[in-house]
Order: sequence, then C-alpha cells, then structure tokens
Amino acid sequence: MKLCLLLNVIDPKIGGVMIMGDRGTGKSTTVRSLVDLLPEIRVVAGDPYNSDPTDPESMGVEVRELVIKGEQLPVVSTKINMVDLPLGATEDRVCGTIDIEKALTEGVKAFEPGLLAKANRGILYVDEVNLLDDHLVDVLLDSAASGWNTVEREGISISHPARFILIGSGNPEEGELRPQLLDRFGMHAQVGTVRDAELRVKIVEERARFDKNPKEFRESYKAEQEKLQQQIASARSNLSSVQIDQDLKVKISKVCAELNVDGLRGDIVSNRAAKALASLKGRDNVTPEDIATVIPNCLRHRLRKDPLESIDSGLLVIEKFYEVFS
Amino acid sequence: MKLCLLLNVIDPKIGGVMIMGDRGTGKSTTVRSLVDLLPEIRVVAGDPYNSDPTDPESMGVEVRELVIKGEQLPVVSTKINMVDLPLGATEDRVCGTIDIEKALTEGVKAFEPGLLAKANRGILYVDEVNLLDDHLVDVLLDSAASGWNTVEREGISISHPARFILIGSGNPEEGELRPQLLDRFGMHAQVGTVRDAELRVKIVEERARFDKNPKEFRESYKAEQEKLQQQIASARSNLSSVQIDQDLKVKISKVCAELNVDGLRGDIVSNRAAKALASLKGRDNVTPEDIATVIPNCLRHRLRKDPLESIDSGLLVIEKFYEVFS
Amino acid sequence: MKLCLLLNVIDPKIGGVMIMGDRGTGKSTTVRSLVDLLPEIRVVAGDPYNSDPTDPESMGVEVRELVIKGEQLPVVSTKINMVDLPLGATEDRVCGTIDIEKALTEGVKAFEPGLLAKANRGILYVDEVNLLDDHLVDVLLDSAASGWNTVEREGISISHPARFILIGSGNPEEGELRPQLLDRFGMHAQVGTVRDAELRVKIVEERARFDKNPKEFRESYKAEQEKLQQQIASARSNLSSVQIDQDLKVKISKVCAELNVDGLRGDIVSNRAAKALASLKGRDNVTPEDIATVIPNCLRHRLRKDPLESIDSGLLVIEKFYEVFS
Amino acid sequence: MKLCLLLNVIDPKIGGVMIMGDRGTGKSTTVRSLVDLLPEIRVVAGDPYNSDPTDPESMGVEVRELVIKGEQLPVVSTKINMVDLPLGATEDRVCGTIDIEKALTEGVKAFEPGLLAKANRGILYVDEVNLLDDHLVDVLLDSAASGWNTVEREGISISHPARFILIGSGNPEEGELRPQLLDRFGMHAQVGTVRDAELRVKIVEERARFDKNPKEFRESYKAEQEKLQQQIASARSNLSSVQIDQDLKVKISKVCAELNVDGLRGDIVSNRAAKALASLKGRDNVTPEDIATVIPNCLRHRLRKDPLESIDSGLLVIEKFYEVFS
Amino acid sequence: MKLCLLLNVIDPKIGGVMIMGDRGTGKSTTVRSLVDLLPEIRVVAGDPYNSDPTDPESMGVEVRELVIKGEQLPVVSTKINMVDLPLGATEDRVCGTIDIEKALTEGVKAFEPGLLAKANRGILYVDEVNLLDDHLVDVLLDSAASGWNTVEREGISISHPARFILIGSGNPEEGELRPQLLDRFGMHAQVGTVRDAELRVKIVEERARFDKNPKEFRESYKAEQEKLQQQIASARSNLSSVQIDQDLKVKISKVCAELNVDGLRGDIVSNRAAKALASLKGRDNVTPEDIATVIPNCLRHRLRKDPLESIDSGLLVIEKFYEVFS
Amino acid sequence: MKLCLLLNVIDPKIGGVMIMGDRGTGKSTTVRSLVDLLPEIRVVAGDPYNSDPTDPESMGVEVRELVIKGEQLPVVSTKINMVDLPLGATEDRVCGTIDIEKALTEGVKAFEPGLLAKANRGILYVDEVNLLDDHLVDVLLDSAASGWNTVEREGISISHPARFILIGSGNPEEGELRPQLLDRFGMHAQVGTVRDAELRVKIVEERARFDKNPKEFRESYKAEQEKLQQQIASARSNLSSVQIDQDLKVKISKVCAELNVDGLRGDIVSNRAAKALASLKGRDNVTPEDIATVIPNCLRHRLRKDPLESIDSGLLVIEKFYEVFS
Repeated sequence: MKLCLLLNVIDPKIGGVMIMGDRGTGKSTTVRSLVDLLPEIRVVAGDPYNSDPTDPESMGVEVRELVIKGEQLPVVSTKINMVDLPLGATEDRVCGTIDIEKALTEGVKAFEPGLLAKANRGILYVDEVNLLDDHLVDVLLDSAASGWNTVEREGISISHPARFILIGSGNPEEGELRPQLLDRFGMHAQVGTVRDAELRVKIVEERARFDKNPKEFRESYKAEQEKLQQQIASARSNLSSVQIDQDLKVKISKVCAELNVDGLRGDIVSNRAAKALASLKGRDNVTPEDIATVIPNCLRHRLRKDPLESIDSGLLVIEKFYEVFS
Repeated sequence: MKLCLLLNVIDPKIGGVMIMGDRGTGKSTTVRSLVDLLPEIRVVAGDPYNSDPTDPESMGVEVRELVIKGEQLPVVSTKINMVDLPLGATEDRVCGTIDIEKALTEGVKAFEPGLLAKANRGILYVDEVNLLDDHLVDVLLDSAASGWNTVEREGISISHPARFILIGSGNPEEGELRPQLLDRFGMHAQVGTVRDAELRVKIVEERARFDKNPKEFRESYKAEQEKLQQQIASARSNLSSVQIDQDLKVKISKVCAELNVDGLRGDIVSNRAAKALASLKGRDNVTPEDIATVIPNCLRHRLRKDPLESIDSGLLVIEKFYEVFS
Repeated sequence: MKLCLLLNVIDPKIGGVMIMGDRGTGKSTTVRSLVDLLPEIRVVAGDPYNSDPTDPESMGVEVRELVIKGEQLPVVSTKINMVDLPLGATEDRVCGTIDIEKALTEGVKAFEPGLLAKANRGILYVDEVNLLDDHLVDVLLDSAASGWNTVEREGISISHPARFILIGSGNPEEGELRPQLLDRFGMHAQVGTVRDAELRVKIVEERARFDKNPKEFRESYKAEQEKLQQQIASARSNLSSVQIDQDLKVKISKVCAELNVDGLRGDIVSNRAAKALASLKGRDNVTPEDIATVIPNCLRHRLRKDPLESIDSGLLVIEKFYEVFS
Repeated sequence: MKLCLLLNVIDPKIGGVMIMGDRGTGKSTTVRSLVDLLPEIRVVAGDPYNSDPTDPESMGVEVRELVIKGEQLPVVSTKINMVDLPLGATEDRVCGTIDIEKALTEGVKAFEPGLLAKANRGILYVDEVNLLDDHLVDVLLDSAASGWNTVEREGISISHPARFILIGSGNPEEGELRPQLLDRFGMHAQVGTVRDAELRVKIVEERARFDKNPKEFRESYKAEQEKLQQQIASARSNLSSVQIDQDLKVKISKVCAELNVDGLRGDIVSNRAAKALASLKGRDNVTPEDIATVIPNCLRHRLRKDPLESIDSGLLVIEKFYEVFS
Repeated sequence: MKLCLLLNVIDPKIGGVMIMGDRGTGKSTTVRSLVDLLPEIRVVAGDPYNSDPTDPESMGVEVRELVIKGEQLPVVSTKINMVDLPLGATEDRVCGTIDIEKALTEGVKAFEPGLLAKANRGILYVDEVNLLDDHLVDVLLDSAASGWNTVEREGISISHPARFILIGSGNPEEGELRPQLLDRFGMHAQVGTVRDAELRVKIVEERARFDKNPKEFRESYKAEQEKLQQQIASARSNLSSVQIDQDLKVKISKVCAELNVDGLRGDIVSNRAAKALASLKGRDNVTPEDIATVIPNCLRHRLRKDPLESIDSGLLVIEKFYEVFS
Repeated sequence: MKLCLLLNVIDPKIGGVMIMGDRGTGKSTTVRSLVDLLPEIRVVAGDPYNSDPTDPESMGVEVRELVIKGEQLPVVSTKINMVDLPLGATEDRVCGTIDIEKALTEGVKAFEPGLLAKANRGILYVDEVNLLDDHLVDVLLDSAASGWNTVEREGISISHPARFILIGSGNPEEGELRPQLLDRFGMHAQVGTVRDAELRVKIVEERARFDKNPKEFRESYKAEQEKLQQQIASARSNLSSVQIDQDLKVKISKVCAELNVDGLRGDIVSNRAAKALASLKGRDNVTPEDIATVIPNCLRHRLRKDPLESIDSGLLVIEKFYEVFS
C-alpha cells in the first residue's frame, strides 16, 4: 500500500489509489504520514490554485493572465499539498462556489475556490470513499480524469486546473464502489491485519510512543524520512528517461487480455507503475520483477467478479503473470 | 461506432446514436474526437441559436424578425457545435430559463438560452445517458424529435429551434435505458474491448504519445483528418441525390417485419443510414452491402428482448438479413 | 383508432379515447393530424375560454356577464382547438392560477387561465397518459366528466367551463392506467404494427415524402381532407336525429351484461358511438353493423382482466356480439 | 343504498353511510340526487355555520353571543346543505384557517370557515373516501363523532359546531378503509351492477333523457319527489315517539354477540336504524321486518374478515338474524 | 381497566396505563369519564403550570421566583386537569414554543407553554397512541419519566415541571408499540367486548339515555360518583402509611424473576399498585389478594413475546402468581 | 459496566464505552450517577471550552490567544462536565453554529459553541446511541477520535478542542451499531437483569428509598462516594508510572491475533485498560488478573460475528485468555 502511494507521487498520471482494508489497519494513518515524504514544488506565492509558474496548463486564470502580460510573479517552494476531504462535505465546499450577485455587480473574482482548487498539483485524500455520495464521487473522478474543475451557475461557468492524485480508502465490510468507479482509480491496494503477536506488540508500542510524545517520535524517524524524500525527488526527475522493452509491453497486454480486463486502462497503468518503480530504484530499464511487484495492484480491481470464486483477485493476476512471463 | 457517428453527421435525420460499451473502451474519447471532423456551417454571427441565415425553420425568433424586416445580417462560417451535457445538469441549464420579473418589467429578451440552444444545428453528447434523470432524458428526446425546445413558466412560453444530433453513451453494467427511450435513438452501436495483446500495446503506445505531447500527436493525423472532412462535406451535399431501389426497400421492411420490430422507425432509419453510407462512399445508389453494414446498428435495439436467448441482437439481425437478401 | 377519434369529434359526449399502441406506431402523429379535420366553431373573439356566443353553459364568467348585460359581442369562426398537454406540466399550468394578492387588492380578473381553459370546446391530447402523475389524471378526468374546472386557493374559488374531448395515448409496455381511470375514457383503441413488408415500404415512403417537403405533402391530401371535413360537419348537425331500435338497445345491454361489464357506461357509450357512426355514414338509423364496428372499442377496457386468459379483450367482445345479435 | 341515505336523513345520529360499489354504478349520482329530498331547516340568515336559532349547541360563537345578548336574529328556511368534499382538498380547506396576524392585530373574526362549517347541520359527501389521505379521514370522523371542529394554530384555538351526516363512497377494487375507520360509519351499503338487459336499457334511456334536457327530466319526477320529501319531514318529527320492544332489543344484541361484533356500535346503530325505518313507514313500533331490512347494512362492516370465507358478510348477518328471530 | 386508572390517580408514581382494546369497547369514554372522579388540588391561580404553592419541584420558574422573593401568591382549589392529546398534534403544540425574536429583543416570557405544561400535576390522555409518531412518543415518555419538559431552540433552553399520569389507549389490530416504549408504561390493561346479549342491551339503553339527555344522565350517577371521589381522596392521603410484608415483596420479585421480566420496573410497579389498591380499600397492609388483582396488569406487557405461544400473557402471570404464592 | 466507566475516567485515551443492556437495567441511572464521582479539574473561568490553563492543546482559540499575549487568566476548579446528548439533537446543536452574517460584518466571535464544546475535557453521554442518526454518530466518533471539532460554513472554518469520553448506551432489541462504528468505542459493556428475587427486592427497596427522599438517600452514600472519588483522583495522577511486562503485552496481542481481531485497537485498549485498573488498585504493575478483568470488555465487540455461534463473545474472549495466559 505504501508503495502504491509512492509510485503515484512519482508519476501522478498513474491515476490515484484505492485502498481497501479492515477497520483499524492504519489506512488513514499511513496516508496521512505520506505528507512528510512529499517533495517540494514551486508555486506562485499566494495563488489559491498553487499555479506552477512555468506550466500554463496548471495555472489559475488570474495567474495565467498576469503571465501573458509578462508580469514577474513571486514564486515560493512549498511541500505538495495534501487535502483531506471530510465526509459530508458539500459539492459547494469541494468544487467552490460562484457568487452570482457579486459577479454581476462587480465583475471580478466572484469565484470562491473549494477543495479541488487547493488540491491542484497535490493529493486529495478521501477516507471511506465508499460512504461518499455517488454524485460527489463522480465529480471527483471527473476532475481527476480531466485535470479541470468546472463550476457552472446560472450561465456563468468558471474552470480551473485540478490535477491531483486521488487517494481513496474504504472498509470492505461497508460495501464496494460501483465497478465503473473502481476502474477509474489507477491502482488498488489491500491491507490486512498483522497476525503475529510480537509484531503487534511492536506496533502497539510504537503507537504508545507516538501518543506519549508525537514530536519526539517524529524526530527519531527524521533521517530515514529524508533519505526517502530524496529518492522520490530524483525518481520524479528521472522518470521520463525510463524505458520498457517492447517484449515486456506485449506481455503486460497479454496478461490483461487473458484476464479479460475491459478497456486498456489496466495496460496503461501497469506500464506507468512499472516505470515509476524502476525510477524509484534508480534504474533506467523496467525489469520483469518491477512488473511483478506492481501488476496485482494495477489489475486486481479490473477483473470481473466471479461470484463462485473465492480466491483473491490479486492472486489470479500474479498467477497469470508467471504463466505469461516465464 | 465511428461509422454510426459519421452517418449521423451526414444525415442528421437518422436520429442520433446510442453507444454502449464496457468501461475503458474509449467511447467518450472517440465521440469527442469527432469534433475535428465536423464540417463548417454558416451561421448568423453572435446568435445564440446558430441560426442558419437562409432557413427560417432553424432561426431563433430575434433573427427571424430581423430577416422578415429585411435586414442584412452578418454571417460567419463556423464548425458544427459539439455540446457536452454534464451529468447532473439541471433542466434550467439544459433548456434555458425565463426571467419572469425581467419579462414583465422590461419586456424584451428575458430568456437565457441553455445547452439546447447552443446545440442547435450541432451535436449534443450525453455521456452515461443511462445515469441521467428519466425526466431529462424525456426532455432531450422530445427536443431531438420535434426540433424545438419550449420553455414555459407562469404563462410565458418561449420556443426556439433545437435541431441536433443526440449522441448518448453508456455502460451496459449500469443498466439499460427503458425500451421506449432506446427506440427513439436512430442507431445503436456496441463497442467491445480489443483482446489481441500486440494491438493493445499499439493503442497503449498511441495513448502514451498523445499523453506526452497532445499537440504534436494531433498534427500527425492532420492530413488523414482533412481528407475525411472533405469526404463528409461532399457526402452531405450529395445525399439528396442518392437512390435506393424499390426491391431493396421491400427487403429492408421484410427484415424488420420478420424480426417483429414494432413501428416503422427501424425501416426508416435503415433506409436513411444506407443512403448516407452510399453517399459517404461517393455513390448515387445504395447497394445491399451498404444495407448489410448499417442494418445491425439500426435494428439491434428494436428487437424484443428474449430473456432466455443469449445471442447478441446484432447477430440475429444480420442472420435475418442474409436470409432475406440472398 | 382514427374512427374512434372521428366519432368523438362528432359526439363529444362519447367521453374521449384512450389509445394504446407499441412504440413507433404513429399514435401521436395520427392524433395530431386530426386537427386538420376539425370543423369550425363560432367563438367570442379574444375570449380565453372559446365561449360559444349562444350557449351560456360554455361561457366564461366575463362573457356571460356581458351577454346578460345585453352587450353585442364580436364573434369569429375558428377551428376547434387541439391542446397538447406536455408531460411534466404542473397542476397550475393545467388548471390555471389565482393571483391572490391581485385578487385582494384589485378585485378583477386575478385568474390566469390554464390549458383546460384553452381546451374548452376542443380537444385535450395527453401523450403517454400512463406516465402522468395520478393526481393530474384525476383532475383531467374530473374536468372531462363534469365539464367544469374549479380552482380554489385560500377561500377564493373560480370555475370555468372545460368541456373537451380527452384523448390519451400510451404504450402498453409502460404499464396500464388504474381500471378506475380507464373506465372513465369513453372508448379504447389499440394500435398494432403493420407486418406486411410492401405496406411498410409504402408508409415509409409517405413519411419520406412528408419529411422532404411537409407543405407539398399536405397539399396533395387536401381534397380528400376537405371531403372528410364536410362529412364530419354534417354528421355533427344530423346527430340528434339518428335513431336506434329498442331491440338493438336491448341487445347491446345484453352484450354488456353477459360480459359482466360493471356499471352502465359501456351501454351508454356503445349507443352513442353507434349513433355517431350512423350519422357519419349519412344514415338516420343505426344498423347492427354500426354496432359491430364500435362495440369492441367501447367495451374492451371495461372487461375484468382474467390473468390466465391471454385472448385480446376486443375479440371477446366481438364474439359475444355475434352470439347475441345473430 | 337509497334507504340507508334516507334513514340517516331521518336520524342523523345513525352516524353516516359508507357506500361501496363497482365503478359506474351511479353511487355519486344517487347521493347527489339526495339533495332534492332534503327537508328544509331554519337557520340564522347569513351565518356561515347554519346556526339553528333555537339550539345553542349548533350555533357558531358569534351567533351564540348575539343570542345571549338577547338580540333578535333574522331567520330563514333553507334546504339542508349538501357539501361535496373534493379529492385533494387540503386540511385548511376542510377545517378552515386562522389568520394569525389578523387575529393578533385586529382581534375579531380571524377565522376563515372551511367545508366542515358549511356542512354543519347538513351532509358531507366524500367520493372515493378510500383514496383520501388517512389523516384527513381521521379529522372527518373525529368531527362527525364529536359534532365539533377545532382548529388550533400557534396557541389560538377556535371551535365551531360541525354536526353532519358523513357519506362516503368508494370502489372495492381500490382497497378498503382500515377496519378502525370503517367501524365509525354507522351503516354500510353495497351497490351492484344491474345484470338484466331490459332494465339496463331503461336506465340508459333515463340517463339519455336527462342528458338531453336535465331541466325537463327533473320536472317529470317532481310529484314523486315532493311526496317523499313530506314523508321524510314527518318521519323526522315523529322519530322520538317510535318504540322498540325489549324482546327485539335483546334479539338484536344476540345477533351482534353471536356474530362476534366488537363493541356496541352495531347494537346501537341497528336500534336507531330500525326506529328510523318504522318512522318512515308511519308506524310507532318497530317490527322484526324493520330490523331484517336494516340489520345487514348496520353490521356487515363490523364482522371480522375471515380470509377463507368468500360469502358476503351481509348474508351472514341475515342468516344469523333468521336463526335468532324465528 | 377502570381500576388501573384509579390506582394511578392514587399513586401517580405507578407510571401511567396503556389500554388496549378492540374498537367500540368504550376505552375513550371510560378514560374521559375519569375526569369526574379526580380529586381537587391546590394550585397557584392563573399559573399555566398548575404550580403547587408548597412544592418547589412542581413550580414553574416564574412562580418559584416569586415564592423565593417571599411573595404571597393567590391559591385556588381545582380539579386535577385531564389533557387530551389530539392525534396529529405537533411537537410545538405538545412541548410549547420559544419565540426567539421576542426572547432576544424583550427578554421576558418568550415561552409559549404547550400541552405538557397544562398536564403538569394532571393526566395526559393519548388516544390511539400506537398511531402516534414515534418521535412524539419518545418525547412523552421522557417527560413522563423525568417529570420535566425541556425545550431548546438556538441555544435558548427552557424547562418546566411536567409531572403527569400518562394514559394511552390503542387498538390491537393497528399494531403494538415497540417493546421499549411499552415497558415505560407502568400498567397495561386489556378490554374486551361484552358477549351477553341482555347485558349489551342494558349498556345500549344506558347509552341511549345518555344521548337523549346527557345532563340528567350524569345527575343520576352523582351520589355514587361522590362516594368514589371521597374514597380516592382518602386513599391518596393514606398511601404513604400502607405497608407491604418483606415476604410478599420477595414473592413478587420471584414472580418477576421466574417470568424473565427484564429490569426491575415490573417489581417496582407491582409493589406500588398493590399498595395503592390496599389504600383504596382502606387498609394499611397489602394482602396477597391485592397483589393477585394488580400483578397481571403490572407484568403482562413485560413478558417476552413467544411467537408460538398463543396464551394471553396475563394468564401466564396469574398462573405464576399462584405457583409462587401458594 | 461501572468499572468500564471508572477506567475511562482514569484514562480518557481508552476511548469511551458502549453499554448494551435490556430495558430497565438502569444503564442511564448508572451513567448519570457517575457524575458524582468525577474529579475536579482546573479551567479558565467563563470559557465555553473549559480550557485547561496549562495545556494549549485543550484551549479554545480565544483563551490561547490571551495566553500567548501573556495575560493572566482567572482559573477555577470545577467538576468534570457530563453532557447529555438528547435524542433528536440537531447537528447544529451538537457542533455549534457559525453566524455568517455576524462573522462578515463584525468579524469577532461569530461562533456559537454547541454540546461538543461543552463536553471538552468531560464526558459526552448518548443514550440509545443505536437510534441516533448515522451521520451524527460519525460526527461524534470523528470528534472523539481526533479531539477536535471543526465546523465549516461557506468557506469559514472554525475548530475547537473537543476531547471527551464518549459513553453510549443502547438496547440490543433495537439493533446494533454498524461494526465500523462499534469498533471505535474503546470498551463495550453488557448489562443483564438480576434474576435473584431477594436481591431484586433489595434494589427495589433502595429505589423506593431514593424515590421517597432523594436528598437523604444521597447523603447516606456520601462517605463511600468520597473515598472512591479520592481513589480515582490518585489513580489519574499515578497512571503514567504504571508498567506492563513485555511478556504480558505479547500475550495480550496473542489473544487478539488468535481471536482474529481486526486492526490493533483491541491490543491498544486492552493495554490501557489494564494499566488504568492497576492504577485504580494502587499498584504500579499490571497483573494477569487485571488483564482478565478488562479484556472481555475490550475485545468482545471486535470479534467477527459468527451467525451460527450463539455463545456470548465475552466468553470466547475469556476462554482464549485462559488458553494463552496459563
């Protein structure tokens, strides 16, 4: 699960992760701790959309206009944003609102940006996504897919970039997402409960240490974190030079085709994820091992459910992988 | 599926297409790419209804009045409009709204046109039409059928032309439309997933190329696109001279009758689609091959569902075609 | 079906028609084309209720008051109105609204007439009546039965004449009306699909001719139409002199009684419809053939449904007719 | 059914009638024709509650105050009111409304009386009572039982007398009332359809005569009507002197007890109805025949439903009657 | 049933009665006649809460403040209030309302007391309690249990004493209360229908006498009533001196325990009811017969329902009583 | 059950208790009596959030700002608050409300704190939590878990500390909470009914004593209460020095793992509860007996329900405990 998160940070085009796990397996904690690993990005200071000063596609309209006018904008380095979408958030809160009266009378800046604006170029985390209103899930996935958020009210329509990594988490006992929605998540991770008593004690003690003094706890992990942070940063910059052999590509597609995965999202994501993993490991070439590591999480949620089959879908994927790759 | 779209562009009276396909089969992408193929039309400049300066039936009321007064209106050439109906759009947004107070106090132009106005003489695309509110589907189909959109509020009633090609897409796993509604779509296309691994890789690579540099990608297809564009334009102008033999007409109706297709929409659409196809191929006469190509998409959704029969309805149509035509 | 419509035009007291037919069988088209056949009536010019200048029972309250004062009102000849009730029409739109404030402050004419006012002395057509809100169906049938529409709001009550022929159409696949409501329609017509290929082609060609040039198409039928129009006009004026033998009356009632038709509406409507048919044919006497022609449409919807019996109710009626009349 | 209505007019304490009958059996027509038979009563002129100038219990509060002050009120003779409760009537319309603001600022007469006021000392007719909102049925039965209507809003409470005969009608195919509500109706009548063809023709002809000229039709029945009207008037005045033997009373109660009728309403109503019938026939003593005539209508709706038994409850009552009385 | 009502009047802490009975068994009549038997209490004149001038716990806040200031309040003797809760009463009507604006602008007495205020120190009667909105039942039982009614709106919270005997009645055919709610009623009475014909006649005649002249009827029972009234008054004052042997207490608890009655409310109520009965009979000691008389009504509704067992729960209680007490 | 409550008072991080018990088992009474045992805490006088003058994490924003400015705040000692959440409380009432207009026009203190503010550093008691609206339960558990309550409206977002012990009670007959929610409660207590008659009598007599004179009753328990109060106070201060052997920790985790408890909340809570118990008993070391006492209440609600198994989950826990610990 942690790996899935890292790969998405390295290549946001992987398309997000859906994390399913029993209650109490620390899903939220892990996602929230991710924030410490996030690399810094350069943004226009004070801009609600975290506009990238060099990429017009990620700019809010105000910034873009200033850039076009040739103005020099103040730029700051900042951590990638991690936005937490609270259960029960309204569509207005998520997408932002247009103040019609203000727009009509004053003209300028009648748009109050929402969480999607804040999440631009960052991460949007939705806990218990399977309890979210279906309509809101649609809105999120549409934004995630198109990279834009469009709000319309009484004929006024405002768009802003909304490129973010969507991370959802859920509890399998509370029901699954519709397959249509599941498919839109790039990867799918499953988290189980530790069954070994000694290991449990260790985790419990870690937790107790954290509860006692959160500050001190975080310090003790600082060095390790920093190293990982640098690894991620370099993986991001090297990603575009990672190659994947034609032969491996065909094998990936063969796995997908033989598993009856609908559409090509599974193929695309598996390619991307394998590249991101290779990049994280500092290599320029994808190995079959990279693919073996990521492919279950890329395809598991794209198999048709066989109601009689009780085997975990991830196992079916890995079985097919060995059949095709050996 | 692409063919169905083209035939509708050539003869809008075919009555739209309903596209069903599994997730990830690129339905939306294909429809959206259609916009590049659309021929230009001449419209009154600045008119919200894209009024045709020569056809009173397609004019908005303001333009028509000016024409009657004999005024000379500025005319521009423009691509056919492709309007995307967002999921969750309100009826007001779709049909337009009447500002009652303004109407009463000021009299003129109290109507705020909606998406149906914008779609006049163009294409209206509704993704996931089977998730749309039933009432809105009725409104769309009524407009599509009558070519007019009428909005009434508190005794004030405003109409404007709303002739558009309705394209709907949906996912079969999320349920079908009511047969009553399905029947109103002229044609019905089904899209499957590619199962051949090499081909998959090719598509994935195309996609990757596009993702890397959308602009460059589009350029590479430019010549091909332009050729097709011209083909469509000439097919549109020649359509009225295409003939279909009486014998072929009877055979089409025989297919419909023996398949127990209710009503005559199936017959009419098959005739039109075959003519449009002949015109696209630059011929003046419909051949049996033209009919064979289009008839499954014209009748498939008009057969009664036999719950025990698991054969695809399209196959039943083509079987019957060969029985009747040979 | 067309005959049912004509008989109702000749004798509006027959009580309307309910038309059931599969999709695409041209129900709406046929009803809408009826408008060309409608005879002219004389109405007070500018009156929203189409008041008959000689019949106080059909006058709106304003006209009646003027008549009582002895004023001479301007009268014009006009086609019988055919009002189309759009799906989704609100009760306010149908029945009209009272502007309470205006009524209290100014006193006069605070009533904004609705579709029922417009339909007075004309035809009200409701497509897909089985999809209409039950409450609205009740309102329609009450008005149709009583000939009056009464709107009440906060103690103010306004009535106006609302005598109209109610024509409903529906699709059997979308469910039936409650038997209680069905019974209130005078007649019931069923429309099927043509199964003969040559005939289908002919209809399709007619349709194509119409689509190509609606104006010209209508011209070609003009003479035929005018003849039928005159036939209807004379049938209307001669209706009151048509007789029906006592013996035939008893036989009609015998058919009704032996078919277990509840109530006497079936008997009454069969008598009326047979007379109207005789009048249309220019006769003064009802023949058994007249009865045979109309009785299935008068009784079909009044038989109790036998869930095991799959025979069409109309056949049961005609069978019983021959048993009783021969 | 007509007898049930008459008995209630003679003795309003019988508690109303519920009439069940198939569609088209003239229930509404019969009830509405009852209005012609109603005797005159003396009421305070212009009073919205039809106050009896001599009975304080039936007076509205304004009239009562004037009477107490010793004022002489204008009195007029008028037909007993028959109020028709339209389906879809709101509780405000039925019970009347309090205009809070007016009450607070001006004090006097802030109550706008509703249909229950109008029905005081008269008849309230509710067609299709089984389609009425349950809550409204409760309100009606509570008023009918207590003889008072109380409206409360924001602490202001207004009561007025509401003594009326409640007549409900319904169609058995549209479901029964809850037994709890059914029991509150004094009597229960069932109407069937005439099966004899000659008789049907006769009724149809009557109806045709009426439709042709309602005025003339009514005249022809005038003498008959006037005789009946006088009979009713004298029956009303003699009612209090009619006796019923102790032996007959015990037998009535025996019938009730052996039929397992819950409560004593059945006993009470049977006694009253038998007396009213004797009075109508001009006698001072109830005979067993009187009882036999009324008891099925008094008890039929109070038997427990035996889901397996298909015999009409009225037959069970009459069977038990003969067992007990012979 | 009448006894249950009397015992509650003697000791209000018994906690109310729930009366179940078929329709027409005079439940409402009996409860309403109880009002004649109620003893007088002394209340502060004009106080909406019927404050007891000597018991601060039963005083409204205004009276309490005056008492604390040492003011001398006018006191009157008055019958215990019997408040009838109409079906369909809103929560505002029941609990009272806070006029926020008034409270904010003027400060004092912004609370409009509701029925619970009126019922303080009296009886609250709810007919057809099983048809009441669940939420309202909760409110009633909470007030009944705590003796206080608290209304909160926008941060303003007002409480007043609401000690009343809750009497509910219902019809078993219309469904039971939730066991959770049933348990909150101290006692539970069941009423049947008289099956003996002579007795029925007698009751019917009584009723007829009452209907004819309610005033005179009541007079005839006056002496009897007055005697019972005095008995109740003295039972109320002697209640605190009635004793119950330890041995009998243990036996009561044994009955409860062996009948698997959840919680101890059954024990407590049985003790109280037996003491109240002894006091009514003028004794200072509870006898086993007292217990036998009351215990079925105290425990019947607290047994777990055995869906297969068709014996009345009251019989199970009395059987167990004899087993334990003999 | 009482022990569970005490342990939570000693260590609020245990995470609350859910109490399930049949009706009439005194759940509410016991919880409400807890208030007498609560130790005192020091709070900033007049602060709506009961801010701890020394702990910034528990301060409301106003107090924190004053502290940062170095102002000296008045401090008072007060009992820990016990807030009762009424059934039917709105989210506004629970979380507090933002007065947008006030916020915009005046700026300062537009937040009206709700029950969660009042419960900060105290106890929040929710009776019949299984009848509470799911959404509100989510809000409560989120606040309980995070220690913060955040209210957002139209872009304004206000947070305040909301650290409280959540105590819920419910009746098993009225349904369980969702497992997801149940798991969020630290402990789970089950209360049964006493079956021994003598003991019942004793409790009943206690109750009777209390009912007679609540004040006197409470006095008699005063000494006992004070002793317990001191025990709790010292247990709270010594808690941090209590140790638990590594071996015991492993055994606890082994019990959890072998019982298939999902996640680690069970392990954590068992550790905490055992420590709190040791501290209550005045010891510095956890013994196996401590664990045996608390572990059933810590794990019972975290076992997967086996629909076929009818044994109480608590017994399964204790069985496993003996298996692992011996």
